[in-house]
Amino acid sequence: TDDEIVELSELFYASSGARSVPMDEFLAALDQAASSESKEGNALGLNKGFKTHPLGIGTCASEYMYAKTHGKYTEEELDVKLTHIEPKDWLDRAAFSSVKAVRFIFDQATGWNRGQITQDKILNRAIYLETIAAIPGMVAAIIRHFRSLRNMTRDGGMLNMFLEEANNERMHLLTFIRMKDPGYAFRAAVIGGQFGFGSTFLVLYMISPAFCHRFVGYVEEEACHTYTKIIDAIENAPEGSDLARWQTEEAPKIAKGYWHLGEHGSVLDLMRAVRADEAEHRDVNHAVSGVGYDTVNPLYDPREKMDGMLKRYVQDMMERSTEKSKPTTSSA
Amino acid sequence: TDDEIVELSELFYASSGARSVPMDEFLAALDQAASSESKEGNALGLNKGFKTHPLGIGTCASEYMYAKTHGKYTEEELDVKLTHIEPKDWLDRAAFSSVKAVRFIFDQATGWNRGQITQDKILNRAIYLETIAAIPGMVAAIIRHFRSLRNMTRDGGMLNMFLEEANNERMHLLTFIRMKDPGYAFRAAVIGGQFGFGSTFLVLYMISPAFCHRFVGYVEEEACHTYTKIIDAIENAPEGSDLARWQTEEAPKIAKGYWHLGEHGSVLDLMRAVRADEAEHRDVNHAVSGVGYDTVNPLYDPREKMDGMLKRYVQDMMERSTEKSKPTTSSA
Ligand SMILES: [Fe+2]
Ligand SMILES: [Fe+2]
Ligand SMILES: [Fe+2]
Ligand SMILES: [Fe+2]
Repeated sequence: TDDEIVELSELFYASSGARSVPMDEFLAALDQAASSESKEGNALGLNKGFKTHPLGIGTCASEYMYAKTHGKYTEEELDVKLTHIEPKDWLDRAAFSSVKAVRFIFDQATGWNRGQITQDKILNRAIYLETIAAIPGMVAAIIRHFRSLRNMTRDGGMLNMFLEEANNERMHLLTFIRMKDPGYAFRAAVIGGQFGFGSTFLVLYMISPAFCHRFVGYVEEEACHTYTKIIDAIENAPEGSDLARWQTEEAPKIAKGYWHLGEHGSVLDLMRAVRADEAEHRDVNHAVSGVGYDTVNPLYDPREKMDGMLKRYVQDMMERSTEKSKPTTSSA
Repeated sequence: TDDEIVELSELFYASSGARSVPMDEFLAALDQAASSESKEGNALGLNKGFKTHPLGIGTCASEYMYAKTHGKYTEEELDVKLTHIEPKDWLDRAAFSSVKAVRFIFDQATGWNRGQITQDKILNRAIYLETIAAIPGMVAAIIRHFRSLRNMTRDGGMLNMFLEEANNERMHLLTFIRMKDPGYAFRAAVIGGQFGFGSTFLVLYMISPAFCHRFVGYVEEEACHTYTKIIDAIENAPEGSDLARWQTEEAPKIAKGYWHLGEHGSVLDLMRAVRADEAEHRDVNHAVSGVGYDTVNPLYDPREKMDGMLKRYVQDMMERSTEKSKPTTSSA
């Protein structure tokens, strides 16, 4: 079926990273697959753990393939504009001030603005913040899921969108963690951050989802600034420096598959994709702040999807008929 | 792109339920879509709430479309066998006895086995149990998500599968709730059940995921029995009776779209699809009981998916070459 073709091509892409497979590797894999029925357990006897297929079919795609909604960004989408939504009421202002205060304290504590920007500083910051960033989407989904069950009412599709956000942030984390292995003190801080922020956010979301989404909207504005600073630093790094290497160094495989970065997708490409994700979360969270529980997801409304499709169809028809009626002399 | 085509055809299916669209409706919709750019807000000025598109494009697809993994079942998949996994150790036995005890108490309290089976009894039972059934998948996903963030390790894809299970159970609930509006006492019992079972299951999952998945596996064995009893009762209902009507009465629209039941999909078709879901949960939960956190999802391993594809490819090649080398006289 069509679904299966999409899925299998995704799967293949995820493992090979868009490189073309040499014929001999392909034949070896075919041979193995065909002869594997007689073996015990699964095809390759790799039932447990995260090992790798001889053809290079890794398992990291399992992390995001089950309900994949992520594809490749266009150049236009990657070219993120730094936007800011002005606070409109006291709730917005409270959200904005909280974000600014938290950012200030965090920057001071980690020394982000002191001294030079380095690979190490970037990875420390990114890894830590991504362990926190995957919390709000999950909390929102939890509350909406149980609410839907308890009241026996529809959710309107937002909960699935927030789950996708949470999983997307988790993919950021799983990517960066491939580039650095943090120490014990760092890991302790991560655990503390999860319990501290997680429980606070849970309570806040029960009180005011509007505040929480506005808060996340402003957090993501900051994230866009930070990733833009990182991207600029990589692009303008003096030749031979630490950061300049990221212009060409390949991104981890899990990232190449998830964002379709291509066979030689670099860390710079990765950073640009991550920033585009953050910009999307920014816009989504600002857009849904204040949208009631009993409303269909304004960003994924089947009626609008359908209308969009019909509109494109009409445009297509009109363009074609204009072309037909045009005299062909101009192009000849 | 291919993804988009799949998605749009899904969307169209979800709204039209496989009926062919009359030309005049289609033209009216095109007209509206094309002229809508000048209007304020979204295309149809239906920004809020759960209203319906004039062409019949409902919003209920928003409930499951965002990360759709559900399609149509084959006749073979619908023909569910009642299986039972024998308990292998004391943990399995504890899970099995708990399920049997809970079922006994619940049956006694609700009078499920007393008197005749009716639409009302079926809906009461189904609605109540589905508000509970969507809890375990979500709890498992919550624990695995936060664990993945806290330890900065991969999950192996199981958490996405459990989220899909939770959403699938929620779709059961949202379908049945269209067929009956429960009273206040019922609603209070639902809320009590959510807090009671939810908190218990959360604690149990932190202690022993193996026990919890085995428990769900046995619950789903019971669910398969119950839905089989319901299906038999509908199929063998005396003509003109309450239950006989469900042989032809159309299933709610949300169900027709989600399970691809076709334009006139009946409540009986719906029950068969729900049973197939429960059988899948049964097999999945039994399969993952005891599978460690650091293992790739055994039911969605990219390596096996790939090998399956390659195997089918080889078989195809072999069949084709056999056909070619065969003398063609036999068919002439
Ligand atoms: Fe992020
Ligand atoms: Fe983010
Ligand atoms: Fe169910
Ligand atoms: Fe179930």
